[in-house]
Amino acid sequence: MSFDLVVKGGRVATATNVFTADIAVRDGKIAAIGEGFNGAEIIDATDKLVVPGGIESHCHLAQESSTGMMTADGYESGSISAAFGGNTTIIPFAAQLKGQPISEVLPTYDARAAPSVLDFGYHLIVSDTSVSDFREDMLAVFERGVTSFKVFLTYDIRLSDDQFLDVLEIAREAGALTMVHAENNAMIDRLRAEFGAEGKLTPPYHALSRPEEAEAEAIARAIRLARFAGAALFVVHVSSVDGLAEIAGARAAGLPVHAETCPQYLFMTADALARPEGGKYICSPPLRGAETQTALWQGLRTGILDMSSSDHAPYRYDETGKLANGGDDFRKIANGMPGIELRLPLMFQAVQDGRLSLQQFVQLTSANAARIFGLEGRKGTIAPGADADLAIWDPEARWTVRHAEMHDAMDYSPFEGMEMVGRPETMIQRGRPVVHGGALRAAPGDGQFLHRARYGA
Amino acid sequence: MSFDLVVKGGRVATATNVFTADIAVRDGKIAAIGEGFNGAEIIDATDKLVVPGGIESHCHLAQESSTGMMTADGYESGSISAAFGGNTTIIPFAAQLKGQPISEVLPTYDARAAPSVLDFGYHLIVSDTSVSDFREDMLAVFERGVTSFKVFLTYDIRLSDDQFLDVLEIAREAGALTMVHAENNAMIDRLRAEFGAEGKLTPPYHALSRPEEAEAEAIARAIRLARFAGAALFVVHVSSVDGLAEIAGARAAGLPVHAETCPQYLFMTADALARPEGGKYICSPPLRGAETQTALWQGLRTGILDMSSSDHAPYRYDETGKLANGGDDFRKIANGMPGIELRLPLMFQAVQDGRLSLQQFVQLTSANAARIFGLEGRKGTIAPGADADLAIWDPEARWTVRHAEMHDAMDYSPFEGMEMVGRPETMIQRGRPVVHGGALRAAPGDGQFLHRARYGA
Amino acid sequence: MSFDLVVKGGRVATATNVFTADIAVRDGKIAAIGEGFNGAEIIDATDKLVVPGGIESHCHLAQESSTGMMTADGYESGSISAAFGGNTTIIPFAAQLKGQPISEVLPTYDARAAPSVLDFGYHLIVSDTSVSDFREDMLAVFERGVTSFKVFLTYDIRLSDDQFLDVLEIAREAGALTMVHAENNAMIDRLRAEFGAEGKLTPPYHALSRPEEAEAEAIARAIRLARFAGAALFVVHVSSVDGLAEIAGARAAGLPVHAETCPQYLFMTADALARPEGGKYICSPPLRGAETQTALWQGLRTGILDMSSSDHAPYRYDETGKLANGGDDFRKIANGMPGIELRLPLMFQAVQDGRLSLQQFVQLTSANAARIFGLEGRKGTIAPGADADLAIWDPEARWTVRHAEMHDAMDYSPFEGMEMVGRPETMIQRGRPVVHGGALRAAPGDGQFLHRARYGA
Amino acid sequence: MSFDLVVKGGRVATATNVFTADIAVRDGKIAAIGEGFNGAEIIDATDKLVVPGGIESHCHLAQESSTGMMTADGYESGSISAAFGGNTTIIPFAAQLKGQPISEVLPTYDARAAPSVLDFGYHLIVSDTSVSDFREDMLAVFERGVTSFKVFLTYDIRLSDDQFLDVLEIAREAGALTMVHAENNAMIDRLRAEFGAEGKLTPPYHALSRPEEAEAEAIARAIRLARFAGAALFVVHVSSVDGLAEIAGARAAGLPVHAETCPQYLFMTADALARPEGGKYICSPPLRGAETQTALWQGLRTGILDMSSSDHAPYRYDETGKLANGGDDFRKIANGMPGIELRLPLMFQAVQDGRLSLQQFVQLTSANAARIFGLEGRKGTIAPGADADLAIWDPEARWTVRHAEMHDAMDYSPFEGMEMVGRPETMIQRGRPVVHGGALRAAPGDGQFLHRARYGA
Repeated sequence: MSFDLVVKGGRVATATNVFTADIAVRDGKIAAIGEGFNGAEIIDATDKLVVPGGIESHCHLAQESSTGMMTADGYESGSISAAFGGNTTIIPFAAQLKGQPISEVLPTYDARAAPSVLDFGYHLIVSDTSVSDFREDMLAVFERGVTSFKVFLTYDIRLSDDQFLDVLEIAREAGALTMVHAENNAMIDRLRAEFGAEGKLTPPYHALSRPEEAEAEAIARAIRLARFAGAALFVVHVSSVDGLAEIAGARAAGLPVHAETCPQYLFMTADALARPEGGKYICSPPLRGAETQTALWQGLRTGILDMSSSDHAPYRYDETGKLANGGDDFRKIANGMPGIELRLPLMFQAVQDGRLSLQQFVQLTSANAARIFGLEGRKGTIAPGADADLAIWDPEARWTVRHAEMHDAMDYSPFEGMEMVGRPETMIQRGRPVVHGGALRAAPGDGQFLHRARYGA
Repeated sequence: MSFDLVVKGGRVATATNVFTADIAVRDGKIAAIGEGFNGAEIIDATDKLVVPGGIESHCHLAQESSTGMMTADGYESGSISAAFGGNTTIIPFAAQLKGQPISEVLPTYDARAAPSVLDFGYHLIVSDTSVSDFREDMLAVFERGVTSFKVFLTYDIRLSDDQFLDVLEIAREAGALTMVHAENNAMIDRLRAEFGAEGKLTPPYHALSRPEEAEAEAIARAIRLARFAGAALFVVHVSSVDGLAEIAGARAAGLPVHAETCPQYLFMTADALARPEGGKYICSPPLRGAETQTALWQGLRTGILDMSSSDHAPYRYDETGKLANGGDDFRKIANGMPGIELRLPLMFQAVQDGRLSLQQFVQLTSANAARIFGLEGRKGTIAPGADADLAIWDPEARWTVRHAEMHDAMDYSPFEGMEMVGRPETMIQRGRPVVHGGALRAAPGDGQFLHRARYGA
Repeated sequence: MSFDLVVKGGRVATATNVFTADIAVRDGKIAAIGEGFNGAEIIDATDKLVVPGGIESHCHLAQESSTGMMTADGYESGSISAAFGGNTTIIPFAAQLKGQPISEVLPTYDARAAPSVLDFGYHLIVSDTSVSDFREDMLAVFERGVTSFKVFLTYDIRLSDDQFLDVLEIAREAGALTMVHAENNAMIDRLRAEFGAEGKLTPPYHALSRPEEAEAEAIARAIRLARFAGAALFVVHVSSVDGLAEIAGARAAGLPVHAETCPQYLFMTADALARPEGGKYICSPPLRGAETQTALWQGLRTGILDMSSSDHAPYRYDETGKLANGGDDFRKIANGMPGIELRLPLMFQAVQDGRLSLQQFVQLTSANAARIFGLEGRKGTIAPGADADLAIWDPEARWTVRHAEMHDAMDYSPFEGMEMVGRPETMIQRGRPVVHGGALRAAPGDGQFLHRARYGA
Repeated sequence: MSFDLVVKGGRVATATNVFTADIAVRDGKIAAIGEGFNGAEIIDATDKLVVPGGIESHCHLAQESSTGMMTADGYESGSISAAFGGNTTIIPFAAQLKGQPISEVLPTYDARAAPSVLDFGYHLIVSDTSVSDFREDMLAVFERGVTSFKVFLTYDIRLSDDQFLDVLEIAREAGALTMVHAENNAMIDRLRAEFGAEGKLTPPYHALSRPEEAEAEAIARAIRLARFAGAALFVVHVSSVDGLAEIAGARAAGLPVHAETCPQYLFMTADALARPEGGKYICSPPLRGAETQTALWQGLRTGILDMSSSDHAPYRYDETGKLANGGDDFRKIANGMPGIELRLPLMFQAVQDGRLSLQQFVQLTSANAARIFGLEGRKGTIAPGADADLAIWDPEARWTVRHAEMHDAMDYSPFEGMEMVGRPETMIQRGRPVVHGGALRAAPGDGQFLHRARYGA
């Protein structure tokens, strides 16, 4: 009984267990978990932590924003940065442009995604339901294994209630999950206009222009519309106390409502916007206050929030990105922050800080995403038959965040200088090293498209 | 690489995964999970389901009731019945009699538990905090690995708020979990007196005398007292809509509050009390209505309820048990129903009926109990290093509940005649068969005492 | 000390008191309340009940529907019918047509309202905020004493969130109250289309096409938008359990949120739509079930609902009205039911039935409307200085609802045949009889326009 | 038409109206409200405010505490102080001593109450339900017009749940209202013991020893017990955010649950206990924090709290009172603060500060108490037939609280030095001046016992 690869002697953590064992791999899959295995290749994980490779299910790569600006990271740099950050799977967005037939979207993104070093899927962003053959094309997208859609309730690409119901009903019919960026656009427009009229345009006004009540209203409405449609819902980047309460209520009522938050809402507050170069910290929803942080941590611990995703939205702090239209008016600064390489270290820091258990770390960074996004049994777990996607961490490594050492195409990190304990060292995808010994071991194109299962399958 | 035992080719379900694999055992522990293992002994599990052996954490064996009546089952028949029902671990109660020094309790139960065929622990029932050396003896009990205490808010052994706080504070100090039977005694006393005065004494009045509002008040109070004390709480046999809501609120608030319900509340209603021999269905809290059933199923699915335990309280329907004081007055009929052998089949029926997933079945019958009662990593999971406690089910077996075929010391089952799909066939404890081929393979005394870890460890 | 009129010896009920007294009137106002007064005219009210004249604050008179159909009642028949029903004040709607400048609306309605026999005001319906000079004209309307606006979230005249915020912010600035017809239009459109496609077009489908969840979502959103704008809100014709709960939450939070329901939701259920001529009972929101009725009565008693208004929307059940486009398709049948003459008798019936106290009857039919709609101290009370607007009831009169005996321009009453106890006999407005001795004593044009105070003044 | 007394030209405020009128009195009752009345006696109220005389429904006069200490004020000084403070009615407590037959209580208090200058009733404090003839004697007390009982859930005189249910059930049967001092005794005992052991005995520890969660638990339990018994409940001196929320929930559910707070909780915080002579500010429940203040003001405005009573519990700050057992140990300092003369001025200050309307002031200081405590139509209103109990205020008077100018038997006021606007000048009881021109005009014994109606009559 020999294997292709054996990761030996590590402390293994899954969503429910922590134990010491060898993990044996054959044909890219986990073949055995136990002790005393031999393999063609051996990786010694003594004193290391072995967890399922992270699943980054909220990131923007090679995607135009609603204003047409392309992200700094494409699939190559984005997937490499993700891999160095402890991930082995990414699910970026394939975005319909307004007026664009749905049938054109995946081909565009297939080309862009070709150089990914990590396995990948897409969530399809729907920004226009009025295009011809909308329903048929949506179902075709679903059949291709793109089993989650995303809609916006704000920005120019926002959908009306009626259009949102169109999407929810097709999703219900197909068995897809609908993700929603929930902010009430009318409230925000009004505040932006007001601040504009008053010349209040510095970055801190960005946060004030998108108050928590705008998010909470939209979350409440999205839940009601999804319930009406009998459809499952996933609320992205929750960052409001009242919005979280709406989700908690839906969960207690047994509705299929899921949600995430992001490390930036957990580790930073709106105070960052008042720093020099405050525009670096502009994202939407915006950074909030300390009370909201506390509630979000609580939401992670009680399971109301299913995961913490990066919402990696990489626009450089230069004229190719955030400063393209000047830095003087928050309304003209691209929304988004990078974070794909730090998401897992930040959440691991929460383990170090006693905020989360190791099992919760696994749940929040891979296991729940696999279950919710149609990858259960394949990704996000360490069990026989699953893809051998593993991350081997040095749980004691002490290091400092330096963007200069990171692998994305950005020019800054919002977490620059932060002191960390614990670092992912070796990432294995389908049994093959992606990152090992501090170096990239995979080549562009090694990542495979993931045909994901229907929601709830 | 050879093993003592290999369970081959089964469909394995854990709290989070379902996969096909061999499970290899060495020295009583799970040594490997994978494929192609050889062993001294092989059990073929092809087309079978392999799950962690059930943990029965609420059962009464060789225990006097508050009125002094001894249960029909002791540890021998009780553990054998449990084993045939898919369990490999039991945690009955060791009950302090009023006035009895705490130090005398465990020795008494150690003698009673000696013939157990299954591994066992105790929860210590505290009925009197005024005995000398109470605090010291409680801490000594805890040090012996009895890390959960139980108190009653009703019956003659009920504790006052003040005594309950005594227990909660010692528990908090030690790291123990306090379980509570929560019913408001004053409400019940009043209704019993009223019904008695009116000659309303048939079994249906038992249910009317213990209304849901009595349970809800006591649950609400117990949560507030535990929060005051900073202590963890476990609410046993929840069977009220409003009580469940109180627990849901506590969980949403992040409090360490856990709860269970029991199959009788899920599969039976108070209508049973109006049947001939209605006294068979007297238990406390009593059976409820259909609306409560719906809420309890919902509570299991949303995770508000952590488990479904049997509350096996075996009093025969004869003059040695329920009819000892006649059957004409519900107040004189012993409270309790048997169920240790059917708990798991009933919960598996819920999987068959589409109410629960396989993973939820494992969570509710073993994994959560292991986590909550200090057995994490040892019991309730299938992972390397854990005790090889396995139950092999035929998931397609069709059978009918017949008490005549059961293994307890009772003379009836409340579920007589129920049609079932799925049956546990082989139970393995620490790698050795307990039940196999329809026969008991273990001997009295094969069960070992479990020194359990502190709550939250 | 002599008076123009004395109402002698009646049992007087106000929002807070019930006592026996004479009410003396001078110059159209209540001059004294007590005993032994003499007056030029005496009305003997011995054994009668004297209450403030009703304020009907939700009725449609001489108003085109959004589809252009004119109500059967104008101000003459409408006000006469209202007067016979125990009212002395009416506040119908002055409705902006889409595209119509706001400045044109009041002149149109001033002409229509000229023949009113009762004092009247308007609520301004805003259906288009894009017209020129919108804000200035709104403020001018407010200055004319039209201090409440109304918007729709459904129908063709619905406002978007953004337009709704426009209205709310002008209202906040001016001190006006914004009323909202809250139903989620997208949910309803979808169900109408679905039922249309399936040929489900009989009246019962009308109710199914406008479910409570559509109302609840819109109420929740309206409250959030009003809170955002810092504006006061009035939710018309509440008829959903969950919507009522949203309002209760807002009230408990201290928000200036008010609400009404209507007798049809209290005394009828959706079963009426299945009767022959079920189209008579089509109104929006539709009639609901018994559970909702129970909740609405509770809402009246707990004060969550401030009043019960008629929502008199008189479309005859003939080709000039509901059957103008045939009666086969619920989507083509005009929405609305008459009720201006029965609102007060129905609410008085609730007093007879023990559901409400006399004080609550006064609160719900006049006093709260006066307070909320800017008539406090003038209408809706029996106190010195207030307009002498009185209704004298025979509280024991037994009668049967017969539309043939009613005074509106309709051809049916939804309450035909209902047995009643208690009837308004004499209505006095500013000291002069409007109805007395079974006859109209006022002439068209006797009613005066009411310049109402700002909200909260 | 002549009257005994006419209060001329005042600005009159009732629970619902504010108007200018004369108030004419004949035979001690309000005979007429209007203008132009003549009377044997005239009081000019031009530029003054005329309101119903205050009803002080929570005060301790001539009552032994549970430790046997007699209040400094008896009915004479207490009623005089109340009268100077704007009251015309008082409802102190008649307290059963433990073991004392109920039949002995009212005779004792009848003797003590004889010198009252104001009309008075009693609430009967029940401290022992085990005395013989308890039920019969309770019903006899009720028949005498003492239609409200009070129980404690803390102190030595606390009742168990069972005893509390005894009282609630007799109250339900009779139609009485049960008042409850709700604090969880076990929590408090524990903290007192803990602080005692640690030598933490200064006044600030008094507040820490009676935390809000103790109050909230007891309020929640009291509501559940009252609901179980089908009885009405009145929660005294609410001073906890969570307890207030429990009451709000009960009210929204339509339960007959009422509540009060007191000015000390509205105008002072626990910081006072850290002042020199902090023992002056010891009362139970204790003073709280600013957040609780905010919630209590909100509760008054939303109507969750029905009134603001003084809880006048006069123990002098000397060896006859608070210092009888020394001032070094908070556990030995008598609980209670004086406030009967300042309650109304403080609540009027809230009108001046824009926190309350004049109508709310009347509701909270007299009208609601009349309705809830069986005096509706007699006290707490200005309407024909009601007792002519009036308070004439100078709403502009500016003054400073000086205990030296007050009329109780105390030696301090907790509000010493506070700047006030608005002062009661003339108090009239049944048409006769009690206080006028700065002087007492009534004699001891002028007050009459009030036979109060049943709750809800």
